[in-house]
Amino acid sequence: MDKGNNLLLAGKLAPELKKWTVPAKDVVDLVKSPKPWQQVAAVPAFPAEKLPDQLLARGGRIVLDFGETLVGKVRLRLECLRSIDSPVKLKLLGAELPYEAAGDPETFESGLGRGWLQEDMITVCELPVEIELPYRWSLRYLVVDVIAAPRTRFSITRAEVIAQSSAGQELPAPLPRWDREMRLIDEAGSRTLRNCMQNFPEDGPKRDRRLWLGDLRLQALVNHVTFRRYDQFERGIRFLAGCTDERGMIPAAVMMSPEPHGSSFILDYSLIFSRLLLEHCRFSGSWELGDELFEAAEKQLDFFRAGLDENLGFHHPGGWLFIDHCQELDRTAPMVCAAIWSAETLAELAGQLNKSVGKIDSLKQKADAWRKALRTSSFDPELGMLRSGYERQLSWASQIWGTLAGVLSPEEARAALAGLPKMPDAIGPQTPYLMHYFLEACRACGAEELLENTIRRYWGGMIRHGADTFWEAYKEGDDFYTPYGDDPRNNSACHAWSATPGYFLRTRD
Amino acid sequence: MDKGNNLLLAGKLAPELKKWTVPAKDVVDLVKSPKPWQQVAAVPAFPAEKLPDQLLARGGRIVLDFGETLVGKVRLRLECLRSIDSPVKLKLLGAELPYEAAGDPETFESGLGRGWLQEDMITVCELPVEIELPYRWSLRYLVVDVIAAPRTRFSITRAEVIAQSSAGQELPAPLPRWDREMRLIDEAGSRTLRNCMQNFPEDGPKRDRRLWLGDLRLQALVNHVTFRRYDQFERGIRFLAGCTDERGMIPAAVMMSPEPHGSSFILDYSLIFSRLLLEHCRFSGSWELGDELFEAAEKQLDFFRAGLDENLGFHHPGGWLFIDHCQELDRTAPMVCAAIWSAETLAELAGQLNKSVGKIDSLKQKADAWRKALRTSSFDPELGMLRSGYERQLSWASQIWGTLAGVLSPEEARAALAGLPKMPDAIGPQTPYLMHYFLEACRACGAEELLENTIRRYWGGMIRHGADTFWEAYKEGDDFYTPYGDDPRNNSACHAWSATPGYFLRTRD
Repeated sequence: MDKGNNLLLAGKLAPELKKWTVPAKDVVDLVKSPKPWQQVAAVPAFPAEKLPDQLLARGGRIVLDFGETLVGKVRLRLECLRSIDSPVKLKLLGAELPYEAAGDPETFESGLGRGWLQEDMITVCELPVEIELPYRWSLRYLVVDVIAAPRTRFSITRAEVIAQSSAGQELPAPLPRWDREMRLIDEAGSRTLRNCMQNFPEDGPKRDRRLWLGDLRLQALVNHVTFRRYDQFERGIRFLAGCTDERGMIPAAVMMSPEPHGSSFILDYSLIFSRLLLEHCRFSGSWELGDELFEAAEKQLDFFRAGLDENLGFHHPGGWLFIDHCQELDRTAPMVCAAIWSAETLAELAGQLNKSVGKIDSLKQKADAWRKALRTSSFDPELGMLRSGYERQLSWASQIWGTLAGVLSPEEARAALAGLPKMPDAIGPQTPYLMHYFLEACRACGAEELLENTIRRYWGGMIRHGADTFWEAYKEGDDFYTPYGDDPRNNSACHAWSATPGYFLRTRD
Repeated sequence: MDKGNNLLLAGKLAPELKKWTVPAKDVVDLVKSPKPWQQVAAVPAFPAEKLPDQLLARGGRIVLDFGETLVGKVRLRLECLRSIDSPVKLKLLGAELPYEAAGDPETFESGLGRGWLQEDMITVCELPVEIELPYRWSLRYLVVDVIAAPRTRFSITRAEVIAQSSAGQELPAPLPRWDREMRLIDEAGSRTLRNCMQNFPEDGPKRDRRLWLGDLRLQALVNHVTFRRYDQFERGIRFLAGCTDERGMIPAAVMMSPEPHGSSFILDYSLIFSRLLLEHCRFSGSWELGDELFEAAEKQLDFFRAGLDENLGFHHPGGWLFIDHCQELDRTAPMVCAAIWSAETLAELAGQLNKSVGKIDSLKQKADAWRKALRTSSFDPELGMLRSGYERQLSWASQIWGTLAGVLSPEEARAALAGLPKMPDAIGPQTPYLMHYFLEACRACGAEELLENTIRRYWGGMIRHGADTFWEAYKEGDDFYTPYGDDPRNNSACHAWSATPGYFLRTRD
C-alpha cells in the first residue's frame, strides 16, 4: 500500500461544498427553570422578521434561533437611521444548545479548552454594514451582546446563516412506514450526518472537526440510506490508509493541518477499519478499494495479537483502548470481541475478493480460537452473560460486543441485551457510540423490538429534550454529563457517532 | 456653489493608500509605577526576533512594541510543532499608549464608548496560520492574551503591522537648524500627520476617524512643510463645501457613511473655513478653488452676525461654539475675534482674487467695527488683556484670539501672552488645539522666543513622556485628563490638531 498515493487520491476527492441561506426564524428568550433539559429553554419571543424594529443600545442582548442546527457562517446586516457617532461593538456566541447559549464564555474553565466555544467580537465604525463572520460555526442559536453602541442606537436588519455541507441542504424524504416520533428521529439523524459532511466527514462540526475512524464507520451506515455520497467515504478511508504509522497501524483520527497525519491510535478503532472497508465496498458496489486495502486492514490484527498470552488471554498491550468514554470500564472482553469481529469481517471480505481458501480459513480459525478462549474464560453460565478481566466485571459493552462477535449465541444475546437494564451494577453505556453498538447487537441477534424501543427511548429522549441533531454525549437523566472535565459546553451536540438510528429504521425488513 | 459637484470632485481625489510592513520591534513588559506618564511604562523585555522561541500556553500574555505608532492592520503568524488538539483563542488589544495597553477593556465604562477601543478576538482551529485582522488600528503596542491554547502550546513566529498612509512611509528629512529635542518634536508632528492621512485627512486614526474642519486647517499647515499633498486638502475642502446645510453653513465635520454628510455645526469652525481656503490657495499656488468657494466662505459671517446686537455685542446664537474643550470657558470674546480674523482673511482672499474694492473694503470695515466694539467692551487697560462676556472672564483663549484678530496690538499681545502663565486664575488651555493657536498668536505678534519655549515645554513634554505622535488631549501635570467622561483611554494619542509645531519650526525666518 502506497501511503502517498492514498493521500493523493483522497485529495482528488475533495468535495464541492453546497451552500444555502437560512434566515433567523425567531428571537428567543433563554429562560432558566428546573424543567427543561439542562435547565434552560429557548422560548420564542417574536418572529425574526420584526428584528429591524428593535433599536439596540449598549447592554442590549438579542438571541436568535435559526430554527434548526446548521453549519456555516453567520451574516448580519446592521443599520441605523443616518450615521453613528461612535462604533458598534458586539460580542457573538454561536451555540448548538440553549445551555451553551445561556452561559458566559468567561466562566468556561475546564476540560478541552475555551477554544472550542464559538465566540467572536466585531467592531463596526460605519453603518449600514453587512458582516460575514470568518468562522464556520455549528449553531442553532446566536447570542448577540451589544458592548458598545452609538447614542442613536442601531438595529439588526438581517441575520442569516450561510449554511454548508458536501451533501447539500435537502434531507431524505421521511419514512412512510414509521410514525411521527420515528420520523423525527430519522430526520435528526440525517441532519446530523448532513452537518458533519464538510470538507470530509467530520466527527462533529463544532468539535473536533476531525476525521475519526470510529465515527466514519457509523456515518457510512447512515450515508448508505440517505445521501449515498460514497466518494466522501472513500476519501475518508484513503486519508486513514494514507496516515498509518511506521508499523502499519491505521490511526484513529486524521488531522489535516499542516498536512494530513494520524493523531491518535486506538486499537479497537484500528480493528474496525476492516468493517468500514467491507461495508463501503458492499454499499458502493465497488470492490477495488477493498482489494487495495485488504492487507492494511488485516495488518491491524497483529496489534491485537501483541496483547495475547499463550492461552489467548488478552492483556492491555499499551496505547489507547476506547470502546466507550468510561474510565471504570474493563475493556478486555470487548477488545477480544472486536478482534473476533474484525477477523470474521476480513474472512468475509477475503471471500468477496476471491482470496485463497487458505487465507479465508486462517482468518476464521483465528476468530474461532479467540471466541472459544474468551467463552471459556469469561462466560458466566449462571447469568448467561460475559464478564471481563481479572475482576470479572459485568458491563453492557461486553454483552454488546459478545453478541457481535458471536461469543454469545443469538438466544443468549437476546436474553442478555434485554436483561441489562435490570442489572444496575452492570457498567452502563456513557455515549451514543456504545449505544449504537447496542442497536447493532440487537439487529445481529434478531431483537428488533428491543432495538425499536431503545431508539424510541434513548434517541427519542434527545428529541424530547429539544434536539434536532444528535449529541456526542447523552446519559439519560444526567443533564450535565460530559466526558471532558465538568463543563457540558465541551460537548458536541451534532455528532456523527450518534446519527445511526435512521440506518436501522431504513434497513428494517 | 454646487454641492453635488463638490462631492463628485472630492470623490475623484480619493488617494491611493501606500502600504509598508513594520515588524514588531520588542516584546515589552507593562510596568506600573508612580513615575512614568499615566503610571505605566513599556519596558523592553527581549527583541521580537526571539518571539518564535516563546511557547505560549493558556493564560499567557505577550505585549509587542512596533517601535513607533502606526496605522494599519495587524498580521500574525502562529505555529506549533506539528498539530494542535484544540483551538487557539486570542484576545487582541491595539494601543497607542502603554496605559491603554495595560487596561482591561471590560472595565471601560464611560465617555465616548468602548466601541473606540481597538479589540478583537480570534479563534484558530489549525496551525500554522497567518492572520490579518480585518481592522485598521492606530497602535504602537499590541497586547496578545492567550485565552485558550492546545496542550502542545504554540508560538507567534511573526508579528507585523501592514501600515498605511496616503502620504507614504517616509517622514521629511530632519531640520538642520534645530537641536535633537526640536528634531524629535518635528518628527513626531510629521508622523502624526502621516498617520492621519488616510482615505482623507482624519482628525485621529483611532478616534474619530472623521474629517473635522478644525483639524483640517491645522494639518494643512503641516502638510505644506512636509508631504505637500495639496490634492488631499482640496479633497477635504470639497467634502466640507459639499456638505453645507440648507442655510449654507459649512459643517464642522463630515461623516462618510452611508454617504458624505455634515454631522456637526460649530460656528468658530465655520468661520475658520475662509482661512483654510486662503492658505490652501497660497500653499498650492492654485487660486481657482478660492474663487469657486469664496462666497460659501463669506456666507459663514452671516451665522456670526445673527448673534450680534445693535451695539455689536455678541450673544450665543444657539448651536455649538468650540474654541477649546473647556466647559467653563466664556467664548464671547474669542468668537468675535474669530469672526474678525475671518473677515480679514476674506478681505485678503478677495484681494488675491481681484474682487472689487467695494467687496474688500466692506469686509475690512466689518472687521474694524467688530474689533473696535470688542476693544471698547472687553479690554482691561489695567491688565492689558481682553476679558470675555458678562462675567468679564479672563482666559488664555481671549488673549490668543485677540492677538490673531488684532484687537490687541503686537506689543500688548506679546505682554499678554507672556504674562498668562503667571496668572493662575486665567482659564487655561485644555487641548493642543488651543495651544496651537497660542503658537500662532506668538508668531503673529513676533514672540518667537515664547513660541520656541512653548514648543519645547509643551510638545517636548509629550516627547519626554514617551510620545512619538502628538496627542488629542494633554494637560501638563494631569496624567489622566480626558475631555470625555473619566477614562483617558477615550483619548486619541495621534491627533491632527496637535501636529503643528513643525510648521512653526520649518517656517521660522
